[in-house]
Amino acid sequence: MRATYLFGPGDVAVIDAPDPGLVEPTDALVRVLRACVCGSDLHPYHGATPPPGGQPMGHEFVGVVESVGADVATVRSGQVVIAPFMFSCGACDFCLEGLQTSCRIGGIWGRDGIGGAQAEAVRVPLADGTLVPVDVSEDDERIPALLTLSDVYGTGYHAARTGGVLPGSTVAVIGDGAVGLFAALSAARFGAERVILLGHHESRLALGRRWGATDVVPTRGDEAVAAVREMTGGDGVHVVLEAVGHAPAFAQAMAMVRPGGAVSRVGVPQYATGPIGREQFGANVTITGGLAPARRYIPELLPGVLAGDVDAGAVFDAEVPLDDTGEGYRLMGARAALKVLVRP
Amino acid sequence: MRATYLFGPGDVAVIDAPDPGLVEPTDALVRVLRACVCGSDLHPYHGATPPPGGQPMGHEFVGVVESVGADVATVRSGQVVIAPFMFSCGACDFCLEGLQTSCRIGGIWGRDGIGGAQAEAVRVPLADGTLVPVDVSEDDERIPALLTLSDVYGTGYHAARTGGVLPGSTVAVIGDGAVGLFAALSAARFGAERVILLGHHESRLALGRRWGATDVVPTRGDEAVAAVREMTGGDGVHVVLEAVGHAPAFAQAMAMVRPGGAVSRVGVPQYATGPIGREQFGANVTITGGLAPARRYIPELLPGVLAGDVDAGAVFDAEVPLDDTGEGYRLMGARAALKVLVRP
Repeated sequence: MRATYLFGPGDVAVIDAPDPGLVEPTDALVRVLRACVCGSDLHPYHGATPPPGGQPMGHEFVGVVESVGADVATVRSGQVVIAPFMFSCGACDFCLEGLQTSCRIGGIWGRDGIGGAQAEAVRVPLADGTLVPVDVSEDDERIPALLTLSDVYGTGYHAARTGGVLPGSTVAVIGDGAVGLFAALSAARFGAERVILLGHHESRLALGRRWGATDVVPTRGDEAVAAVREMTGGDGVHVVLEAVGHAPAFAQAMAMVRPGGAVSRVGVPQYATGPIGREQFGANVTITGGLAPARRYIPELLPGVLAGDVDAGAVFDAEVPLDDTGEGYRLMGARAALKVLVRP
Repeated sequence: MRATYLFGPGDVAVIDAPDPGLVEPTDALVRVLRACVCGSDLHPYHGATPPPGGQPMGHEFVGVVESVGADVATVRSGQVVIAPFMFSCGACDFCLEGLQTSCRIGGIWGRDGIGGAQAEAVRVPLADGTLVPVDVSEDDERIPALLTLSDVYGTGYHAARTGGVLPGSTVAVIGDGAVGLFAALSAARFGAERVILLGHHESRLALGRRWGATDVVPTRGDEAVAAVREMTGGDGVHVVLEAVGHAPAFAQAMAMVRPGGAVSRVGVPQYATGPIGREQFGANVTITGGLAPARRYIPELLPGVLAGDVDAGAVFDAEVPLDDTGEGYRLMGARAALKVLVRP
């Protein structure tokens, strides 16, 4: 089959790879209908050293089940399924608590003999715990919207949920990538009174407004902090949703949160330490969020996507055939596309 | 009057200072019945450079109201009152939200013409918002217990409350000072199934056990982390209550928290940054706590102290007359006393 690999900084290629097949009785084999490129793919794309032989890429996909192992009970051949960005058993204590990202036997795509999602097919371990079947046909126009439940919608939602956004909250969202936009949407749906979206791309900010952002701040750094403070009478916001992951974004978040408020971060940290000293302690600022258990949120968010209450597919502003996945990385790396669909 | 000042590292002296009096119509003048030395007093004692003329010391006291300004409505002369470790108006948005430490016009003792509590008398600004009258006589044996509501009891309680300790939680408490002991007590009262107290003083650990700690860990550093992990099947605890404030204690806390859990810190940070990178993000660890709004908790905790449900006064294991306050610092600095009462 054709599959996408990272061979070095900026070097993404689609190559012939061995066809996946069932290995464990808990596996499913899934033919990919749509995958996509994630903002978090850009971190290794811009700088990681992949293992010898390359790194299989992609962790978001909607597909059709081709076959299942003998122990798989909840999905069957022919079903359209959503796969979250990690696989998980669904039965251990962490999974039952809704923290599938800490599943005791789960893992991530593209490692340990499991392929990436930017490919024609994927072997899915722990299929019962991982996959969510959806009653749609494989040419349903909502497939792109459903694909956002693999990661970006659930991740934005995780930010707002763990940050404790409530009716009447003031919220700032740092980052106008797909996760930031879903964070803004989720904050609005939790009833936030004010949702201030910080970003630098007119079209993304426009989508953010359509999804519930009440204000946009297109400036950067200290200027952006000052703007948010001015909008909130000098106090800062109840909740900051940090959807970037770079150290300056986190510092900015800590500088615009109201005393007693929370910074909820869902951008994968590109830093090891952060400002959590006496000032933040004195203001009783909580730091929360983390790697989103996307699997947990799929059943909860699915009805709104199916019903069209949320036009989640609007985050995709470009599409490439699988063999051109490298072009998808280039477009996203250059910020020329918000989020790129990959069609095998 | 006699009052305690810090003049340099290790240099605490009780000197003659001007008698305080009413200045603002919202002031009360309070004669101190009992003050005490706080673990957080030891940070400046061990190293701060005080302002010229010295730093008035002490921020915990129970006293008798001597006189009140014309605008004071809720306390009157002759009443025994508890003063929290900060003064606050009780009427601004932060005070009404229960975050009196962020009061818009509040402040701390020992600055801007307000004296410290290790003295014969204190001018109390914003008396209505700050003081809590208690219907006891000034020679009541519960005065020391009531004094813990100025700071250490409320601070330990804040750790357990913001950390989200629930019935069935596993909890680790770092630090066997007065705040750590009250944190352990509060966790037990919230219904924690297991309360693991980390400290190095046999008598303090014994008090911790009496107050609800189910396990004690007397080792340090990595060894202590390993012990807590071993007690919890390798996973760590749901909530860590960090009651020390030094960087290694915070790092230890982050290393023994379960995925999805919380580190609630009430030790005043002696660090500016901390480990909050990809590992902690991946585990969905929340960092919470902060400077405790002790004033908020006094009405809530007072009945249990008055009824003797909590023998809060047991944290005091030494008492000095006001003129010997320096000896109190020496005892606490040398860890020869857990908490020292000061009697004017």
